Amino acid sequence: MKKILLLTTGGTIASVVSAEGLVPRESGDDLLRNIGYLPYDIKIEDILQLDSSNIQPEEWKIIADKIYQERLNYDGIVLSHGTDTMAYTASMLSFMLQNIEIPVVLTGSQVPINVVLTDAVDNLRLAFAAADRCQPGVYLAFNRKIMLGCRAVKVRTTNFDAFESVNTPCVAEVTSEGIVFNQNARISNESCNYRSQLDTNVSLIKLFPGFDPSLLAALAKSGCHGIVIEGYGLGGMTFIRRNLVAQIGELNKQGIPVIASSQCLYERSDLTKYEVGRLALLEGAISAHDMTSESAITKLMWCLGQGMDVEEIRNCFNQNLVGEVTL
Amino acid sequence: MKKILLLTTGGTIASVVSAEGLVPRESGDDLLRNIGYLPYDIKIEDILQLDSSNIQPEEWKIIADKIYQERLNYDGIVLSHGTDTMAYTASMLSFMLQNIEIPVVLTGSQVPINVVLTDAVDNLRLAFAAADRCQPGVYLAFNRKIMLGCRAVKVRTTNFDAFESVNTPCVAEVTSEGIVFNQNARISNESCNYRSQLDTNVSLIKLFPGFDPSLLAALAKSGCHGIVIEGYGLGGMTFIRRNLVAQIGELNKQGIPVIASSQCLYERSDLTKYEVGRLALLEGAISAHDMTSESAITKLMWCLGQGMDVEEIRNCFNQNLVGEVTL
Repeated sequence: MKKILLLTTGGTIASVVSAEGLVPRESGDDLLRNIGYLPYDIKIEDILQLDSSNIQPEEWKIIADKIYQERLNYDGIVLSHGTDTMAYTASMLSFMLQNIEIPVVLTGSQVPINVVLTDAVDNLRLAFAAADRCQPGVYLAFNRKIMLGCRAVKVRTTNFDAFESVNTPCVAEVTSEGIVFNQNARISNESCNYRSQLDTNVSLIKLFPGFDPSLLAALAKSGCHGIVIEGYGLGGMTFIRRNLVAQIGELNKQGIPVIASSQCLYERSDLTKYEVGRLALLEGAISAHDMTSESAITKLMWCLGQGMDVEEIRNCFNQNLVGEVTL
Repeated sequence: MKKILLLTTGGTIASVVSAEGLVPRESGDDLLRNIGYLPYDIKIEDILQLDSSNIQPEEWKIIADKIYQERLNYDGIVLSHGTDTMAYTASMLSFMLQNIEIPVVLTGSQVPINVVLTDAVDNLRLAFAAADRCQPGVYLAFNRKIMLGCRAVKVRTTNFDAFESVNTPCVAEVTSEGIVFNQNARISNESCNYRSQLDTNVSLIKLFPGFDPSLLAALAKSGCHGIVIEGYGLGGMTFIRRNLVAQIGELNKQGIPVIASSQCLYERSDLTKYEVGRLALLEGAISAHDMTSESAITKLMWCLGQGMDVEEIRNCFNQNLVGEVTL
């Protein structure tokens, strides 16, 4: 019987009604009691009890440390987590725990587990099955889909089908045949290369017409070490009147990396196609290619945390570390 | 024969290959020459020739002034425009030109009109048909769909199906029967209430774990008059350690409105459900409900431009002006 560790961190799945609105209160024991018998040897550790709007880099470190310590004692780990920041946590764990030796599967729910028509039972059962069956790596399991953690995005606020695997197919889906794999995870024989240092002094800016580029300088001045800009379409940036492109060049000279992603949810950014993108590239903008914003901002924090300079970060964004980008 | 005015502003639809990448060069005459005969009395005015990454509030004013001046001389207006910022322009024109007496239809394409397999021919023909058939209002027509301008979002960077009508059905779709209407536009007997004053000193922030709330204070200090924050899920905000909720309260006291929207593309924000949202509401955050970010940031610029204070803006965001929000 496989040994699986359930780590709980709070979230809607563990929430109860209170005078302040829904707040996370239920333990891992409470969760397991609701999902019926599973053929696994399950251990539980309640490590946090937070709404995931309050999960931050400090919590990522706590979660990652625990996973790293326990990884050789179990066949797989399930991490219950609020949905709001689950995609960020899944991306960050992917970067921190490269070459993890076992499957780590994040899940949660849109409706608390103590509600009759909850999605938590299905999602937790799926997460355990994924921790049993998947190749080593970091995954997000939700609504009968298993996706790479670094590709997941929460796209719907209330629907059970809350997450999508963006710009790459789901790793697997559940049919009446059980888990059907769409793609093979990359298998590595190396042991886990745990690097959890982060620099959280970063910003995520969404471009809009009228955006004042001098705000980027203000961010840099107030201690920002790197910026992800969600540009338009393929990654285009304004250069007439409000010269964002020139401002990127200035930041680049100051050693502050600027990552150009797209505010379009689907498909890749490509700065080479239009003049507005080419000029940004010339000034040193780093393309996020087809990465999600969640993945781009966490990768940037992680790269800066490893002490990389602008050119090293540029190289790192042109590499596929954990399946986060199609090159 | 209906009189329709074609206003051109550049964009991919009018682009040609150059050493600097694709740049907009073609005129309205060039566009019309490529789409074959249409049974309308069409006049053309080339008013701008820009990649839409460079369309900004100053251009919105030029476009809106022209539409306002010409609206009683035509049965409808087609506006060709780059796709990158088309959803922002469509939202802003909706607010500026409330109760416009004729249909105004924005369109563009993913591939230039001078390419054999362009989508520009279909999209332009659809825009003319929409300008002929739709009720008065501002629309975006693309890939056989006609949507309300204030609900459109560009969600795909390269696919022909680039735009979606978010949180409301398309106004109409094209089938072999022609235009099939899904919903009736609101018909008004009032004349156009043209108000084009804007305050562009606004910011659009996308929340991520680790976001430093003091950056909001830095924005306010550097002259920002209003902020849209794309929170998590239903609109949740961090309040432990990095207390974004308290920072919103500070800004509220200073008379700076903070609009809480969701970074989830689909479905509404609802700050009343979780503690993390309720606390933000208590501190004065204004809910964007199910508006798109494009609509929220343009409505904010428009409200500030009309001289509204925080409470007036709060009231305005709790009203449906042009179909932008479901209340």
